[in-house]
Amino acid sequence: MAGNAFGSIFKLTTFGESHGTAIGGVIDGCPAGVSIDFEAIQLEMDRRKPGQSAIVTQRKEPDTVQFLSGIFEGITTGTPIGFVIQNANQKSNDYSHIKDVFRPSHADYTYTEKYGQRDYRGGGRSSARETACRVVAGAIAKQFLKTIEINAYTSSVGEIALNKSYKELNLANAETNDVRCPDSEVAAQMISKIKAIRKEGDTIGGVISCVIKNVPVGLGEPVFDRLHAQLGKAMLSINAVKGFQYGSGFEGTQLKGSQHNDAFNADGSTKTNLSGGIQGGISNGMDIYFDVAFKPVATIMQAQDTIDKDGNVVEMHGKGRHDPCVVPRAVPIVEAMAALVIADFMLLNRLSKA
Amino acid sequence: MAGNAFGSIFKLTTFGESHGTAIGGVIDGCPAGVSIDFEAIQLEMDRRKPGQSAIVTQRKEPDTVQFLSGIFEGITTGTPIGFVIQNANQKSNDYSHIKDVFRPSHADYTYTEKYGQRDYRGGGRSSARETACRVVAGAIAKQFLKTIEINAYTSSVGEIALNKSYKELNLANAETNDVRCPDSEVAAQMISKIKAIRKEGDTIGGVISCVIKNVPVGLGEPVFDRLHAQLGKAMLSINAVKGFQYGSGFEGTQLKGSQHNDAFNADGSTKTNLSGGIQGGISNGMDIYFDVAFKPVATIMQAQDTIDKDGNVVEMHGKGRHDPCVVPRAVPIVEAMAALVIADFMLLNRLSKA
Amino acid sequence: MAGNAFGSIFKLTTFGESHGTAIGGVIDGCPAGVSIDFEAIQLEMDRRKPGQSAIVTQRKEPDTVQFLSGIFEGITTGTPIGFVIQNANQKSNDYSHIKDVFRPSHADYTYTEKYGQRDYRGGGRSSARETACRVVAGAIAKQFLKTIEINAYTSSVGEIALNKSYKELNLANAETNDVRCPDSEVAAQMISKIKAIRKEGDTIGGVISCVIKNVPVGLGEPVFDRLHAQLGKAMLSINAVKGFQYGSGFEGTQLKGSQHNDAFNADGSTKTNLSGGIQGGISNGMDIYFDVAFKPVATIMQAQDTIDKDGNVVEMHGKGRHDPCVVPRAVPIVEAMAALVIADFMLLNRLSKA
Amino acid sequence: MAGNAFGSIFKLTTFGESHGTAIGGVIDGCPAGVSIDFEAIQLEMDRRKPGQSAIVTQRKEPDTVQFLSGIFEGITTGTPIGFVIQNANQKSNDYSHIKDVFRPSHADYTYTEKYGQRDYRGGGRSSARETACRVVAGAIAKQFLKTIEINAYTSSVGEIALNKSYKELNLANAETNDVRCPDSEVAAQMISKIKAIRKEGDTIGGVISCVIKNVPVGLGEPVFDRLHAQLGKAMLSINAVKGFQYGSGFEGTQLKGSQHNDAFNADGSTKTNLSGGIQGGISNGMDIYFDVAFKPVATIMQAQDTIDKDGNVVEMHGKGRHDPCVVPRAVPIVEAMAALVIADFMLLNRLSKA
Repeated sequence: MAGNAFGSIFKLTTFGESHGTAIGGVIDGCPAGVSIDFEAIQLEMDRRKPGQSAIVTQRKEPDTVQFLSGIFEGITTGTPIGFVIQNANQKSNDYSHIKDVFRPSHADYTYTEKYGQRDYRGGGRSSARETACRVVAGAIAKQFLKTIEINAYTSSVGEIALNKSYKELNLANAETNDVRCPDSEVAAQMISKIKAIRKEGDTIGGVISCVIKNVPVGLGEPVFDRLHAQLGKAMLSINAVKGFQYGSGFEGTQLKGSQHNDAFNADGSTKTNLSGGIQGGISNGMDIYFDVAFKPVATIMQAQDTIDKDGNVVEMHGKGRHDPCVVPRAVPIVEAMAALVIADFMLLNRLSKA
Repeated sequence: MAGNAFGSIFKLTTFGESHGTAIGGVIDGCPAGVSIDFEAIQLEMDRRKPGQSAIVTQRKEPDTVQFLSGIFEGITTGTPIGFVIQNANQKSNDYSHIKDVFRPSHADYTYTEKYGQRDYRGGGRSSARETACRVVAGAIAKQFLKTIEINAYTSSVGEIALNKSYKELNLANAETNDVRCPDSEVAAQMISKIKAIRKEGDTIGGVISCVIKNVPVGLGEPVFDRLHAQLGKAMLSINAVKGFQYGSGFEGTQLKGSQHNDAFNADGSTKTNLSGGIQGGISNGMDIYFDVAFKPVATIMQAQDTIDKDGNVVEMHGKGRHDPCVVPRAVPIVEAMAALVIADFMLLNRLSKA
Repeated sequence: MAGNAFGSIFKLTTFGESHGTAIGGVIDGCPAGVSIDFEAIQLEMDRRKPGQSAIVTQRKEPDTVQFLSGIFEGITTGTPIGFVIQNANQKSNDYSHIKDVFRPSHADYTYTEKYGQRDYRGGGRSSARETACRVVAGAIAKQFLKTIEINAYTSSVGEIALNKSYKELNLANAETNDVRCPDSEVAAQMISKIKAIRKEGDTIGGVISCVIKNVPVGLGEPVFDRLHAQLGKAMLSINAVKGFQYGSGFEGTQLKGSQHNDAFNADGSTKTNLSGGIQGGISNGMDIYFDVAFKPVATIMQAQDTIDKDGNVVEMHGKGRHDPCVVPRAVPIVEAMAALVIADFMLLNRLSKA
Repeated sequence: MAGNAFGSIFKLTTFGESHGTAIGGVIDGCPAGVSIDFEAIQLEMDRRKPGQSAIVTQRKEPDTVQFLSGIFEGITTGTPIGFVIQNANQKSNDYSHIKDVFRPSHADYTYTEKYGQRDYRGGGRSSARETACRVVAGAIAKQFLKTIEINAYTSSVGEIALNKSYKELNLANAETNDVRCPDSEVAAQMISKIKAIRKEGDTIGGVISCVIKNVPVGLGEPVFDRLHAQLGKAMLSINAVKGFQYGSGFEGTQLKGSQHNDAFNADGSTKTNLSGGIQGGISNGMDIYFDVAFKPVATIMQAQDTIDKDGNVVEMHGKGRHDPCVVPRAVPIVEAMAALVIADFMLLNRLSKA
C-alpha cells in the first residue's frame, strides 16, 4: 500500500534513506532451490555504484550487500531473503545548506507536504540510492530466470541518439564503454557530451533501451496486469523516468494496421515484431523491447532561485558530487526492474492451467 | 493476482467476455456517502459505446449498466458496488470463420497458449469490450473526486497531430466533434483521415492526451507506486496502448537540467511545469498531463495470410464492424482509468500522517 | 482492502445486500481447464438455501446462480468467473418496523456508525445471505480440488454434543438428516432441541466440525499465512462465528509434550494426529480437522428493549422468518470456505520450488 | 503471497532464521509523525526474550533491535522502518545431531517436503525466534495507537486455570510474576506446575487471554476481513497456537439468543458484552476480549523415536535449552499481534466515508 513493495509473487520490499544507517530489503517469494552466485550480484552492484567512471558522480559508496537470511549453503531456501547495504557516506552536514530549502524539481516539497516531516539529509527516501536494493533483487531474479537474457543500453544522451534497431547492434558491447552504448562511435560522442555538460555545471537527459530474449509464451496477466503495463510501471517507478514505450511505441501510432500487423510463421513466431513480443498483454515468445526516457538530473552546479519552507525566495548553489547524466548508471537498474517483472510473471504463469 | 482487478483501496474487479452473457464488475472500497448521478454515468458510457458516430464501429450495443448493490437511495453505502452490462450482440456465428484461426497481432495465439483453452467468440476476454466496465467505475470515481477535473482528448491520428500545448486549447471543445479533438480544424482533418483509412479497409493509430486539474499536493506513494507509475500502468493496461509519457516526456530527455527544472513561486507552485505536476512520484498541485499512444486496430478489412491452430497457413478476410481508429472511443477510457488512479491515491493519502 | 475479497490466487470478491436486486461475485484466478458440473453447484446451494427443512427459516429463496463469464462450453477458460443470484425476496416493507431501530447483537449500530449510512432493509450487507456467494465459489473450488474431500457436520447444538471423534463416524450420514449430524440418534435430539427452541421464540448456538482428507504435503505459507491461520480467518469470517480450533485445540493445552507429540511412521505419516494435519503451518498429509463455534442467532421472536438512532429506548418484536439455529445451513458454508482456502494454497504451493 | 507479511496498510514483512546472521523486518505504512519511545520498544523485547526468568529457556539472546530507516530525530517519517536483530546464538553445531532427523510435531518434515531444502540449524524459519520481529512492530503500533490499551495475560497452564473474567482482575498484576498471570495465587500454582514439568523433561500447554480497551466504534472490514477474523488469523499465526475464541466463544454456543443478545444502553454501549466488543465484524466500542490456545512445546528432554530423511527409525534425545511452557513469553507476542491488527484497522477506517 505505502508503495515500498514491488511484485506480487516474487516480491521486493525495500527500506532506507540515502543518509540513514543503511538501506536494504526483503525478497519474499523467491522459490527454493536457486543457486546464488554472489559475485554476479556484486558485479551488478558495481555497474550501478557511484564513482565507477569519469562521467558519473565521484561519490564513493562501496555498495557491498550483506545477506541476512533466506540463503543456506549458497542455495535459496524458500524463506525471505533479507539484505542490507551500509551507507558509507552518511555525513549529514553536506546537506545543512538545504535543510529548510526546497530544491527545484526535487521531491523535497512534495514529501514535506505529504508527510508533514522533513528528512533533509540529501534526498532521504526519494534519493536514487534506494535503487541499489532493486539491483540486488534483480540480480537474484536473473539467476532464477537463467536462460532469459535481459540487456539494457544507452540509446540516447540529449540529442545524440543511436538510431539503430537493437538487431543491428552487438549488445554485449554496451559494457565496453562508460556510457553503456553498444555503438562505440556514438558512445564516444555521448561521453564527450556528458563531459561538456558537466563542465557547464549542468545535466542532461537520455533514453535507455532494453531487450529481453528467450521469454516463453504466456507471461502477463490480463486485463489490468498486462506484461507491458507492469513493465511500464516498473520503469516509471525508477527515479527521473518520464516515459515508456514498447514495440512500435509512439511512432507506431502513425502506421496503418496493414503495416503494423505481425504476420505469423507456421510455428507461431511472427515475421515482423512491431508488437514488441507482447500480444493482448501476454508474451508471444518474440523479443520484448522497450525504451525508457530519463529527464536531466535536477541537481545542477549553477545558482538557482528557489524557496524555503516559509516561502522566502533564496538563492541556492549546487554542492556535492552528482551525476551529470543519470543514464549510464541507470542501465543496470532498468535490467533489474525488468528481471523482477519477468520473474514475477514466470511464477504467476504456473497458475494459469488446472 | 490473475490480473482482473485494479487499484488498492478504490478497487475495481471486472469480468466478462465480448460474446458471453454479460460483462460487469465490482467496485470495492468506494467510500460511503457519495451521491450517485446515474445519468452522468450513462453519459460516460455513451461516449465509449459503439455506433455513436460515423467514424467508429457501427455495431449496436446499448451498453446500459445495471447496478445490483452498494448504492441505496442514490448514495453509496460503503459496501461493494456490483454492476452488469448485458451483451446485446452475442451472436457467436459471426466468428465461426475464425474459430481455429489465430488473427495477426490479436491475442488469440497468446491466450490459447497461456490457458490451453480457446474462447473463439470474438476477442473473448481480450476484447476491448471489457473497458466498458472501466468507464462505469471511472464515472463513479469522478463523482467521488468532485472538483478534480479530468479531460482527455485526441491529439493525433496517424500523422495528423495537434501540436499544441493543452494550455492553448479549450478542452471542452473536444466533445463537439466525432474525433474528440479540441481544435476543430485539426479535428476535421483527423475525421477525413479516418474515413479515408476505412475506405481502404485499413486502420490507423493515434495519441490521446489527458490533463488533470485541481489535484491536491501529496498524491502518490513512493517509491514503487509513484503517481505517474500507476498512471502509466493504468494507461498501458488499455487495449492497443504502446506508450506513455508525462510532463516533458521523451522530448524532455534532450533538455538540460537548467532548462528542465521548474522554479518555485513563493506559494509552492512552480513557474513552469515540465515535471507534469509530479515530483518524486507525488503530486505537487500543478496540472498533471500525459500522452498515451494507441497502435492501429489489428482487425482490418483486407485479406491477410495467417495460421490456424495446427500451423497451417490460411488466408483470412476481415469481417464484421470494427473501428478504423480506436482513439475517439478511447478518450473516455483514458479519463476513467485516470479517475480510478486519482481516487485510489486520494484515499491512500489519508493514511500518510498519524 | 475494503474486505469483500477472499484468497490471494483463487480469489473471490462478493457483492450484494440481502434486500437489494441481487447478490453475486467474481472468482478471479480459477485456473483454466476445470470441467464444471453445474448440478453439483446447485446441490451445494440447495444445502444452504432457506426453506429446505422444518428446522430452518421458512423464507423462500430459490437461490439459482447464473454464471456470466469465465466458463465456455462447460470448461473454465482462466478468465474471471462472474455470477449473480437474484434476490427473490426483496420486499423492503418487511423491515420498515426496524428502519430506525438498532437490533441487539446485530450489525445495525456498527455499520451505521462506520459508514454514516443506514441500509435498513434487513441485514443489508451484514446479512448471512452473502454467504450464498461463498457456496458458489466453494463449489467451483471443490471441482478444482477433485480428490480432496471436505466434509463438515454439526457436532453440537446447544448442550447436545456429539462427543465422538470424526474417525468413529460415517460422515456421509450427515446429509441424511435435517440437522446434518452424522450420528442419527444425536441428530434426533438436536432436531427436537431446535424445534423446542423455536417454539419458545428463541434461538440456540452450536458447533460445526470439519474434516479434510487427501490433502498433499506442503500447503500453507509460513509464517503469517499458516494453513490453519487462513482456515481460522475463513471460518471466523462467517456470520455468527465466535471460535475456531484445530487438531487438539483448546483441550490440547492441558496435555504434556510427551502426550501431544505425533510420532512418525517410516513413510512420514504420523501414528497419532493431535497436530490436526498441520505442522509449522504446513499440511503434513494427515487429515485436517477443526471446529467452528456459532453463537445463537440474534433475531428472536420475543419482545426486547433496544434503542433507535436517536438513543430512545424502544421495544421491538421479532418478525419475519428466521433460523432458530444457524448451524444446519452453515455446514455447506464451512465446507465452501475450507475449499477456497485449500484451493488457494494448492495454487500457491506451485510456487515454492525453482 | 509467500506468507512473510502481515497487515494491509500498517504492514510488517519479516525475515530471518533462528541460526542465521540476523532476523529483522520492514514496517511499511506506519504514518509519519509518530514519536518513538525506543526504551518502550526494548521493554517489550525484554518481555519476550529468552533467559528472563527461571521458568523459561535459559538461552541468552540480548535481542537488541537496531533501526535502520524510517525514523528521523525520534519521529516516524512515513517511509519504511527497517530493523534488524542480530542472532547472538547462532552456533550451528548445537543442531548437528538433528541434521537429518525430523523431530516429531516440528516443522522439519513439512518444510523439507515443501521447499526441497533443509535448513537444519534449529527451527530455521519455523522457529519462534521470528516472533521477536512481531514484538518490535507491535511496540511501534502501540505507540501509534496511544490511548488504546492492549493487555494479555496467562489464563491457564495445563489444567491450572484462572477461571475469572478479566473484569474481576487487575491486569497490571500480570507483569508482577514470571508466568504473567494477574492472580498471584494462581500464578504461584502455574509456576510450580511449570517447574515440575521441566523436571520431568516434559512441556505443557496453556491459554493466553487478551483484552483491548478504548477501541473506537467502526474498526473491521466486512465481510471477509471482520475484526475478529483478522485477530483470529493474527493469533493463529503465532507458533504453537491451536485455537482462538472471542466474546462468548465456544461456551456461547450453548446459550439461547435471549441470553446472548447484548441489550443497548441509550448511548449505544451495551449492558452485557457477550459480543466481545464486535458486532457484524466491526468494533462497537465495548472491550474486545479473546482467548488463544497454545499446545505444549514439541521439544522435550526425553528420548523419542522418530525418523530421518531416509525413513529410518532413530532415537532422538532433546538437547539444548528450551521452554517448558511457551505461554509466559508469548504474552507480549499476543499483544503485539493485536496491536498490529488494531493499527491496521484504525488506518483502514479512515477510508470508510467520503
